[in-house]
Amino acid sequence: MSAVKGVSAPVYFGSFLVTPQVISPSCGLNRLTHVETNLGPLSKQVFHQTPLSFALVNLKPILPGHVLVSSRRVVPRITDLTPAETSDLFLTVRRVGRMVERVYGAASLNIAVQDGVHAGQSVPHVHAHIIPRKPADLDPIDAVYGMLGGEDGDVGKALRETQTGRHTNSESPKKRTRFPVVDNEARKPRSAEEMQTEAEMLGREMEKEALD
Amino acid sequence: MSAVKGVSAPVYFGSFLVTPQVISPSCGLNRLTHVETNLGPLSKQVFHQTPLSFALVNLKPILPGHVLVSSRRVVPRITDLTPAETSDLFLTVRRVGRMVERVYGAASLNIAVQDGVHAGQSVPHVHAHIIPRKPADLDPIDAVYGMLGGEDGDVGKALRETQTGRHTNSESPKKRTRFPVVDNEARKPRSAEEMQTEAEMLGREMEKEALD
Repeated sequence: MSAVKGVSAPVYFGSFLVTPQVISPSCGLNRLTHVETNLGPLSKQVFHQTPLSFALVNLKPILPGHVLVSSRRVVPRITDLTPAETSDLFLTVRRVGRMVERVYGAASLNIAVQDGVHAGQSVPHVHAHIIPRKPADLDPIDAVYGMLGGEDGDVGKALRETQTGRHTNSESPKKRTRFPVVDNEARKPRSAEEMQTEAEMLGREMEKEALD
Repeated sequence: MSAVKGVSAPVYFGSFLVTPQVISPSCGLNRLTHVETNLGPLSKQVFHQTPLSFALVNLKPILPGHVLVSSRRVVPRITDLTPAETSDLFLTVRRVGRMVERVYGAASLNIAVQDGVHAGQSVPHVHAHIIPRKPADLDPIDAVYGMLGGEDGDVGKALRETQTGRHTNSESPKKRTRFPVVDNEARKPRSAEEMQTEAEMLGREMEKEALD
């Protein structure tokens, strides 16, 4: 994870703690135990932090390098962010996008925010999807968007499953869309080790990016 | 159009001039004639400007209130923007999004940037789509994204047709996607008058928004 001066507070994605808790003198072991028991695989997903935003890898990326950038403050809508938080979020999207495009050998990026439940938002916490694109990686080119509405884009479902260990069968017909090339159903959630390895690699790569 | 102090330069969306040219002493009538001949309907699409960004209405909105926010400087990729331009763009997205959500009685927003040609970008100029969403307006909820790849989201095609007066038949199978509810093909481009009326209304509504 990229070190950011002054950034040591726990990070939440919605109601999910996604950084390992710091042991504080006041709660110590209990707090650490809580993290280890319930949040192991999630705690290693965050690969970059700024004072107001953070970036994390996905359990089931739509395409290689599909990551999320979220505000540190847990609010559902962009309009709930302050102007400073909004600027920081999208400056982070810009820098993280540049990094994943480079690292995954891509040539373009899809950037999408489902701003509110009626726009398909599954976790009530502002987050931007960044999806690196290569020539002819999907047919049609916009199939990527339909996949945001499928299981792979349902970050909330993935997080719930990781926390509970149960894979729900919430295949809502309202949320399914078609995408001709990528066999969505056949793909399995990644292992905690695989996600952690990717997050560590992306954290190192972020340190190579210019600050602007 | 919202007045912004110090903002009087012409505005381009890609290679298309989208504000009426100011008659300058050096080129005067020729320049105005050029605008009136080729750019009439487009010149009234812009409803809001900031020093670094602008917002415009669409020829064929995917849903009511579907508008675009673009950088004043014509560059294709978000990474080509300066940090100041990036912040201004997304602060404008936040304010314009809040306005269209209110004006069109929506409850959520889809925000999407096709950042590069391999992500579906049709005009090589950074722009964010803002699409107001209501409960059950589309089935499936993410059909909206597929439509970005269809004719309605192809802002470039719409602009080219408006400029040339010809409706091209560039129905590429690679760019078509399916969307069950809205009959995309049956919808016609809006008239210049309709777009201008909407842009004027939205310009007035923007003035009611808080600056933050």
